[in-house]
Amino acid sequence: MKTTLRYDSANMLSHRVGRFGAAPEDLRGLRNRLARAKRAIVERSEAGEQGWLSCLDDAAMVKRIRDLVKKKAAYRTCLVIGIGGSDLAARALSKALKPGEKKLVFAGANTDPDELAGILSELDLRKTLINVISKSGDTVEPMATFLIVRDRLERRAGKRQAANQIIATTDRESGSLRELAEREGYDTLPVPKNIGGRFSALTDVGLFPLAYAGADMRGLLAGGRAQRDAFLRGKPEKNPTALYAALQYLAYLKRRRIHVLMPYAERLREFAFWYRQLWAESLGKKTDRRGNVVHVGPTPVAALGVTDQHSQLQLYVEGPNDKIITCIEVGTFDDDAALPDSVSDIPSLAYLKGKTLQDLIHAERKATVTALARNKRPNGTVHLPNITAETMGELIVFFELATAMMGELLNINAYHQPGVEEGKRLTKQYL
Amino acid sequence: MKTTLRYDSANMLSHRVGRFGAAPEDLRGLRNRLARAKRAIVERSEAGEQGWLSCLDDAAMVKRIRDLVKKKAAYRTCLVIGIGGSDLAARALSKALKPGEKKLVFAGANTDPDELAGILSELDLRKTLINVISKSGDTVEPMATFLIVRDRLERRAGKRQAANQIIATTDRESGSLRELAEREGYDTLPVPKNIGGRFSALTDVGLFPLAYAGADMRGLLAGGRAQRDAFLRGKPEKNPTALYAALQYLAYLKRRRIHVLMPYAERLREFAFWYRQLWAESLGKKTDRRGNVVHVGPTPVAALGVTDQHSQLQLYVEGPNDKIITCIEVGTFDDDAALPDSVSDIPSLAYLKGKTLQDLIHAERKATVTALARNKRPNGTVHLPNITAETMGELIVFFELATAMMGELLNINAYHQPGVEEGKRLTKQYL
Repeated sequence: MKTTLRYDSANMLSHRVGRFGAAPEDLRGLRNRLARAKRAIVERSEAGEQGWLSCLDDAAMVKRIRDLVKKKAAYRTCLVIGIGGSDLAARALSKALKPGEKKLVFAGANTDPDELAGILSELDLRKTLINVISKSGDTVEPMATFLIVRDRLERRAGKRQAANQIIATTDRESGSLRELAEREGYDTLPVPKNIGGRFSALTDVGLFPLAYAGADMRGLLAGGRAQRDAFLRGKPEKNPTALYAALQYLAYLKRRRIHVLMPYAERLREFAFWYRQLWAESLGKKTDRRGNVVHVGPTPVAALGVTDQHSQLQLYVEGPNDKIITCIEVGTFDDDAALPDSVSDIPSLAYLKGKTLQDLIHAERKATVTALARNKRPNGTVHLPNITAETMGELIVFFELATAMMGELLNINAYHQPGVEEGKRLTKQYL
Repeated sequence: MKTTLRYDSANMLSHRVGRFGAAPEDLRGLRNRLARAKRAIVERSEAGEQGWLSCLDDAAMVKRIRDLVKKKAAYRTCLVIGIGGSDLAARALSKALKPGEKKLVFAGANTDPDELAGILSELDLRKTLINVISKSGDTVEPMATFLIVRDRLERRAGKRQAANQIIATTDRESGSLRELAEREGYDTLPVPKNIGGRFSALTDVGLFPLAYAGADMRGLLAGGRAQRDAFLRGKPEKNPTALYAALQYLAYLKRRRIHVLMPYAERLREFAFWYRQLWAESLGKKTDRRGNVVHVGPTPVAALGVTDQHSQLQLYVEGPNDKIITCIEVGTFDDDAALPDSVSDIPSLAYLKGKTLQDLIHAERKATVTALARNKRPNGTVHLPNITAETMGELIVFFELATAMMGELLNINAYHQPGVEEGKRLTKQYL
């Protein structure tokens, strides 16, 4: 398939937003570095160091997931137990795609007892498939949640039936969850060794729950491949993802270090939370690849259009010019609603007569980006024609590639997270 | 009642986090300005310029809301139609307090046709009370939504029955919604003239939906009064709210301009979104009170503990030291769950044996704030003993007062939002 995602960068440029925007010479000056960054990404992929680009071609994965979906078809609900890279993609994509064959419920992304009690009170565990996801099996939040849930299920349904209802998505060979799964006879799915959690949306991690719920896994992968192939094919300066990364990078250098993602679609609300982990955890680093202490990293902010026009826009327009805003626009929604003729009842809203909600949401985004630009606030818009498995696949890989490019431009390792180890160690100590 | 909220500021201070923290002399140097800021807030309240402190004593309001709750008791669901200051408090407080007598559904905070279609497909409009909230009646998102919903309801139930199911919360005398309500005979509730949307949590705006759903309105107000009275009574430097504002202000001066609020409780997830509007829209301003162009304002970020330890913490610990983090800790949750003995199945988790989820969430917060402090990242914690109407009332007024104090310290008008007008004008133009 061809790519359908477009990136409108005009309001990121100096001729629109003045000195805080990118000048033509800024972009020209980056050309060689963009080419090098792209080469580095390709090399890491080809060497097998990073697997998130090649997984898009993995036919064996698709078959494995399909088979398991069929084998476990008996349940009406799937309880997905994971945190961070193990659940954010499935949350985002199920919210966006609304697959309706099975219901997905998420747990294990917190250790809040009230939340778990609420979730369990609404579930019939005996009719629920449980997909616990942890690469190592040591991640305390999902594993604690899983062990509590498993205990309740075993007491109700017996150990054997419980084992039949559990799928463990974990490292192929080693780790605590792998050991447990083999001992108890759980079905398993692999987390590839060379793919970190936050890049695992389009692997067994993200795809099994989505496929189980009825989403179009092949569409997601096809969209992902379309973005990847467009990136691999041409010159980076002509590619929207590379351009996006370049402009975010230039803005970062100009001290615009708050990066807002503001989809104009409720169905993409959680997508912004997936992006937020990807951008923050990949790019927030103490040292660069040479070991220099750099304390680098933009702060991603998840916003929502039009809702946050009545919450954050005042700050974005009038506050410090320290942000860049990226909107996501959806061309055509699945539904629409015409404003009734009774809008004329409200004289100040008479201009809405004959319009639909789609007209309104598009006009509001356009007004926001124009108001931002007039106030010299750099902003861009990612356009999707609609929300489908294919376009969501594109969107995921667009941001994965942009993140990887930013990592190379900043000369940091975008694939680890050393900063969270101390907290884990201290948690253990305090218990 | 006495206040129960505590603010632990130790990790905001220089002896813990070095030069990015507040030194004793910084705080001493602010004393007079804090006293002046407090005086200004008291004066604005006493002069009637701002009504969000005195509304806490409004017995007539309580009676009015109670009476209307009784009068409209026949419905099982209340559809709240509002945006920003008109819906965020009710969303946050209903999520926190989980009142169960009626179900609250929210719409009108977006103009997304897919979202509205999804909401309406799950509602039986004939069994639904509709509370449309707009001070002016000109706010396009809720009013467009309201007119669509009203049109459908009228077609199903007839104009007269529809009018019986609608409550308009709006300006007492003027505006499009007031006119419409009088013409159609809707029951109405007033939005006080001297209270802006984002300060209207504990007025008819926020309280009617909550009371209708069964939340303890008197408890909310009592908690709010406790915080207010503690603030009014003592010297500001001894008051937790004033101290909180002072420390946020000092951090802002030291260029820590990203202010993260990270409740460790799923039930407070949406509270952080209420805070985010309050902090951003009140403090993000182009000009100060003298008319100087200042482009001032911290960027609030809504985070969630422990979830975001696996998403944002890497950035907070290792990235640029440009943030301050405020956790909210809940002392005792309503529920708890013991880890089963089978945690010993996972050797790396054996340390959880005999522990509960509450133990775990507390240890994780403590580990996070300690890790942040060791990495010289200023942070504080607001402690609530539990989540009740009283403590939520305290929390609301704590942040309202802190916002007002910040506004005075920054010498800006915290109560208007001139920056969003241009977007509204352009929206109209594009349609």
